[in-house]
Amino acid sequence: MKTNDPYLMIPGPVTVLPRVLKAMSQPLIPHRGKEFEEILNECVEGLKPLFGTGEDVLILSGTGTLGMEASISNFVSEEDVVLNIVNGKFGERFYEITKKYATPRLLEFEWGNSVDIEKVEEGIEGVNAITIVHNETSTGILNPVKEIAKIAHKEGALVIMDGITSVGGEYVEMDKWGVDVAVVGSQKCLGCPPGLCAVAVSERAWDKAKEVKNTPYYCDLLEYKKALEKGQTPYTPAVSLFLALRECVRIINEEGIDARVERHRRASTAVREAACALGIELFPEIVPPSKYSPTVTAMRMPNGITDSELRNGMKEYGVYVAGGQGRLKGKIFRMGTMGDFNFRNLLGAISILEGVLVSHGVIDKPGAGVGAAVEVLFG
Amino acid sequence: MKTNDPYLMIPGPVTVLPRVLKAMSQPLIPHRGKEFEEILNECVEGLKPLFGTGEDVLILSGTGTLGMEASISNFVSEEDVVLNIVNGKFGERFYEITKKYATPRLLEFEWGNSVDIEKVEEGIEGVNAITIVHNETSTGILNPVKEIAKIAHKEGALVIMDGITSVGGEYVEMDKWGVDVAVVGSQKCLGCPPGLCAVAVSERAWDKAKEVKNTPYYCDLLEYKKALEKGQTPYTPAVSLFLALRECVRIINEEGIDARVERHRRASTAVREAACALGIELFPEIVPPSKYSPTVTAMRMPNGITDSELRNGMKEYGVYVAGGQGRLKGKIFRMGTMGDFNFRNLLGAISILEGVLVSHGVIDKPGAGVGAAVEVLFG
Repeated sequence: MKTNDPYLMIPGPVTVLPRVLKAMSQPLIPHRGKEFEEILNECVEGLKPLFGTGEDVLILSGTGTLGMEASISNFVSEEDVVLNIVNGKFGERFYEITKKYATPRLLEFEWGNSVDIEKVEEGIEGVNAITIVHNETSTGILNPVKEIAKIAHKEGALVIMDGITSVGGEYVEMDKWGVDVAVVGSQKCLGCPPGLCAVAVSERAWDKAKEVKNTPYYCDLLEYKKALEKGQTPYTPAVSLFLALRECVRIINEEGIDARVERHRRASTAVREAACALGIELFPEIVPPSKYSPTVTAMRMPNGITDSELRNGMKEYGVYVAGGQGRLKGKIFRMGTMGDFNFRNLLGAISILEGVLVSHGVIDKPGAGVGAAVEVLFG
Repeated sequence: MKTNDPYLMIPGPVTVLPRVLKAMSQPLIPHRGKEFEEILNECVEGLKPLFGTGEDVLILSGTGTLGMEASISNFVSEEDVVLNIVNGKFGERFYEITKKYATPRLLEFEWGNSVDIEKVEEGIEGVNAITIVHNETSTGILNPVKEIAKIAHKEGALVIMDGITSVGGEYVEMDKWGVDVAVVGSQKCLGCPPGLCAVAVSERAWDKAKEVKNTPYYCDLLEYKKALEKGQTPYTPAVSLFLALRECVRIINEEGIDARVERHRRASTAVREAACALGIELFPEIVPPSKYSPTVTAMRMPNGITDSELRNGMKEYGVYVAGGQGRLKGKIFRMGTMGDFNFRNLLGAISILEGVLVSHGVIDKPGAGVGAAVEVLFG
């Protein structure tokens, strides 16, 4: 049964609400002038509380990787030592980018494992900046940024955080945690189409940025800061996506950040409970549950079904989930709970998963997974 | 009389057709998989004839300046000498970007003046690459890329061309002219919202790219080439904008490139004739007319009216034109004829200009400008 109404439960891009699509499809307006200035400012002010910051937030036309490059290239020089904490694909991407701009010091943990705080303490000496992924989308792990930032600050190191898949879906307290630079992508928990990213920058980080010379032209954040003071972006922005993002910011304000975080946490708990009830192993077998990502759940591929059978099987019923990335390809599958999803779609997706598992003989009888999820959602 | 139906005759972003907005606002699809692959390929194949190339075309999520940075940073190293031919703001931007990646040699002409080919010949010795803006949007000039490329090739220099506001609106013959790298922005003659850019790359340029080390991570074109072979982009693309661009490519194919170029040329001629009939001086007082841009016309601000009176006056009636940039601020105004505009809107815009000029006492009687334009369009 093919459907023309696909629902994305991949960890971004997410299915966006019709009112966001509608906002995006308004006729173009000029990118210089009062109208765009108001849109830009509403986006910026709307993002600040999601980052947990009163500092500057700059929005760039480009996807998350551009934001990651901006958050490194503006704040480190060749001679700076950067501790790259890696326990998944996006930590690794930070490391790859760092190689272009500074002297990386790799601190890698098994993908799917938690960050060992003691190892961070051992590796921090002489470090000028650290990179850490808050929510490691590739493995479904939430990293302890607050604890890591504390260690970094003792050494005077800048804390650069990938919040691409956490900001807007989980509490981020940049100022309280002492994070200096954080980045978010539009197409994740913010519920917007892909094409924009935003970088939040502390005063301390700006001081450093003024000395840095090797920043690429297009992502030089000092230029974005200067332009923002005039209500502009330095280069033509993706105007339609800003219209979409403004609508998302309004949606988030209507829901409220507490309710939004609660919805994300509850949904991911429901997915995990459903997996357990179906005998599917969670990929990172970590405790306590607080270390699991609230926005994406990674599960081991069950015996008796292949990656493509599972994902294509679900896709036929209009539910998109993601496979493993890099070294985890074929070994895990991932279900995102990001943005403006609702429980009806979530339970529908879990039910479709059960149907596919039944039809491949992986489980005998459907119902247990959805049942467990309903208990969480209605509990 | 305020209107809620603004029409952008600035040199980008342009007002896009409703069917493009509709295509853009389709529900999100995943960026990995067959559906997106088909969209990506249709965009790439649709752009090739507009560049006049059979070589690779890579599409990046970001606006034109990102494309300009990609076209320099992938193809030059620090020790390379780059001749930056500058006769306007975008030529200057190429120069600014070059400073980050190579050793620039500035060859500047008065903004609004033509490029003096003899000076290019004198300056070409020992040059590894040249940058040239095909259509200098800031001044309304079309530069003689073919002649310049011939000189560059004698020296073995790569030819890097900004085609941001020409590709899709004027003939570009990359392969025939010997242009090695060319860039276009989505929001200009292609008739798409801003947020995408595309770079076309010759075989000779790829050979060089393999040696270059300092390319930023996000715009490393070799990664885009590798990903494109699998029908993908290396990082999450701005999916909705690709849906829009595909629609634009279809619109362009329906119109046909010859008819499209003819429409752009005729429209810009109509604007210039209207200006002359109204006693408005064209900004670059150059001959022959073939050196005038076919996609944007720059005019000197008439006596008796200020920049803001003229532009705000027209805006009240829903027509947006642009002011001067950089050192030309306040001295000129510019009317774009880019993308999927039609003659009704164009004549409407010229009529509104006349109305504003009459109401400020700049001209006595309206009609002459539109009359001259109608003669061109119906001639």
